Amino acid sequence: MIAEIIAVGSEMLTPYRQDTNSLAMPAELNRLGVAVAFKPILGAEFSQLVDAIRIALRRVDIVLLSGGLGPTEDDLTREAVAAALERGMSRDQTVVGSLKERFNRRGIQIREINFKQGDVIDGAELLPNANGTAPGQWIAAAYEDIPRYLALLPGPPKELTALFAEQVRPRLAAVIPAQHIATALLRMAVVPESEVDARTAPIYQAYPDVSTTILSTIGEIQLHFLCAKPSQAEAEARVADVLQRCADEMRPVVFSEDGSSPEVVILRLLAKRGLTLATAESCTGGLLSQRLTSVPGSSSSILGGAVVYSNALKTTFAGVSPGLLDQHGAVSESVARALAEGIRQRTGADVGVGITGVAGPGGGTGEKPVGLVYLAVSTRATTEVRELRLMGDRERVRWFSSQHALMLLFTLLQQDGSPGAVTLDQP
Amino acid sequence: MIAEIIAVGSEMLTPYRQDTNSLAMPAELNRLGVAVAFKPILGAEFSQLVDAIRIALRRVDIVLLSGGLGPTEDDLTREAVAAALERGMSRDQTVVGSLKERFNRRGIQIREINFKQGDVIDGAELLPNANGTAPGQWIAAAYEDIPRYLALLPGPPKELTALFAEQVRPRLAAVIPAQHIATALLRMAVVPESEVDARTAPIYQAYPDVSTTILSTIGEIQLHFLCAKPSQAEAEARVADVLQRCADEMRPVVFSEDGSSPEVVILRLLAKRGLTLATAESCTGGLLSQRLTSVPGSSSSILGGAVVYSNALKTTFAGVSPGLLDQHGAVSESVARALAEGIRQRTGADVGVGITGVAGPGGGTGEKPVGLVYLAVSTRATTEVRELRLMGDRERVRWFSSQHALMLLFTLLQQDGSPGAVTLDQP
Repeated sequence: MIAEIIAVGSEMLTPYRQDTNSLAMPAELNRLGVAVAFKPILGAEFSQLVDAIRIALRRVDIVLLSGGLGPTEDDLTREAVAAALERGMSRDQTVVGSLKERFNRRGIQIREINFKQGDVIDGAELLPNANGTAPGQWIAAAYEDIPRYLALLPGPPKELTALFAEQVRPRLAAVIPAQHIATALLRMAVVPESEVDARTAPIYQAYPDVSTTILSTIGEIQLHFLCAKPSQAEAEARVADVLQRCADEMRPVVFSEDGSSPEVVILRLLAKRGLTLATAESCTGGLLSQRLTSVPGSSSSILGGAVVYSNALKTTFAGVSPGLLDQHGAVSESVARALAEGIRQRTGADVGVGITGVAGPGGGTGEKPVGLVYLAVSTRATTEVRELRLMGDRERVRWFSSQHALMLLFTLLQQDGSPGAVTLDQP
Repeated sequence: MIAEIIAVGSEMLTPYRQDTNSLAMPAELNRLGVAVAFKPILGAEFSQLVDAIRIALRRVDIVLLSGGLGPTEDDLTREAVAAALERGMSRDQTVVGSLKERFNRRGIQIREINFKQGDVIDGAELLPNANGTAPGQWIAAAYEDIPRYLALLPGPPKELTALFAEQVRPRLAAVIPAQHIATALLRMAVVPESEVDARTAPIYQAYPDVSTTILSTIGEIQLHFLCAKPSQAEAEARVADVLQRCADEMRPVVFSEDGSSPEVVILRLLAKRGLTLATAESCTGGLLSQRLTSVPGSSSSILGGAVVYSNALKTTFAGVSPGLLDQHGAVSESVARALAEGIRQRTGADVGVGITGVAGPGGGTGEKPVGLVYLAVSTRATTEVRELRLMGDRERVRWFSSQHALMLLFTLLQQDGSPGAVTLDQP
């Protein structure tokens, strides 16, 4: 079966607002074994809406509509679906009663137009909405004798997500041929997409029963696998198998085989080893620290650190000597090393990270161009420094710097214990 | 005239990838006086593509297609447009030549399938693409004798944006009835959308010739105004007028009337006054610092600061006495004050910011629940402290904390000089 997700709302046709529901919904549908074939966004023009719904009924099995269930004159999804199906509507008095009660409770005067939220398309089932005033509706219809399923859902993501999970998913599951779906996600950092594709395509192409999607975000490549089989065990085994083979091919840039973010992976490694970490960031201005502390529970491993934007603070907080700064300049291997070592000593952390570089757009020179970044990780045993020459704008340079810092941490935290590896705990 | 933007690419029908081009394109079209009526996203199924293009030709004047111009078997936009218009295609030898040259230069073997990027729909103009291998195409066609304009554009945002600006915009401008468009943007922080709407709707509704869009993001409300008039001056005057009246109504929560972000506004105020700033962040973990330093040139006002996640670092870096921490706890008005004052003194900055709170999901108690945040701004003259009780998850609590910090800075940096106001520069 295939689905179409129609997002209704003029604001999503402006330059200011993205339709975000249409990311959550494909995930839910894929898990039911349904592929999404179309995702149109349209506004509040009635005849355009009716036409779009008729187009959807012709070309897909399942039509999910989000938005346009509010109480204003622009909220026309109910009316448009009724018109497209050539059905009438009637006002549900239970909904009207609960609207009245809700308005009374908040001491707000209810207007006649609010009651249209109680209009139910003939033959539709009302889907109660615990998080808002607009109930959803579920309709089993037919287009030229082929069964079609429609769900009308409220636009606000929180309402939509809950209503889909509680009311729509079980109804869809009852009409969709039973399948077992398994998914898996392999995440890699700071490697070009073309290289990942060249090396893994020969592997995943040998799994025609697994759908593989390669996605590239800033500083990260993800391989998503999805497989549908008659049994869950079979599906799980197939995605686990292709993931494992791709992961083996791509080591050491693989940082997670279970979908975890780099931040979570680093915190897990720190916790496992009982290590604490502190950062001294110049060009990234707190980005690395902010990323690590965005993870719940990070306070057990992350002590904090310093944002040493000015040279004076490099000395005050990380003990970098003014002489070193004069001799090598703030953007240098020596200063990155001194930042990592200094912040580790000052804070008493087991691991220190130092980052210094030219994020741009200004501040670059012939010798030290925009994108030149030095990155250091210091432990009691050793300090590793990397020189990065990054491309792109300020945001990209900063993000990549933090991404490389996470990758260097990952490498060092994992290596420990292997023959010839850096030993973090060594005194 | 109205437009439809068709995004072609199966990856945008997965849960993993958003279509982002469709935000930049409406902005460009609106500036030409064209409204976007439909934004469908679809995959690589040929007959679905052909049908979707025919549907668009029936219902809009301008059809922009992005994506599907690559060299793979899934890249079918050229073929589908030709089929929808019932036109043939021919291979452009100049494109073929430049593809060969490009591949030769990089030492890569060119395959037969690559040459399809040189296929030109009969009657189309080729639009050279300086940033990639796929040229765009421009077609003036007719649907039932009504003129229609189609542009085929490459998917990668950088290529699409440049190609649109250089090749498509002038062609559209030549066929669209001349209009002059003015836009304006009012940004407000930490105020509920419903309050902004209730107070400004009576104002902007009196401007039926100005299209007003209210948008709410986390901790910020934006009012976007757009007006089309026979002269630029007239359009500018109308949007300036409605913006001014809404701004007057909403002070003091208005932080920018020219579309500037809060970070930029704070940096501008600091620069104007020649003041420097340092931060001591606990629960926000570097987020405030990261936001401020994301602005190019911020190093002239932002010295840096400390991420004082652990209690020990609150003492080491911001001089908060262990006794104070013991007595009041890390999440307290006193500690926020001590952080702001301490970081200001330690760094020699003119302004110090301290943030401490419970971001959650863990760590809350009956007395100090998740969402309780203390925020302080210290100057040589005074220290102001605010208690926040924020709702939502960790990410939201952290974002709102940084947003409130920017708003408190804004208030204090502006007040100076007014009667009875805080004087920042006072020794």
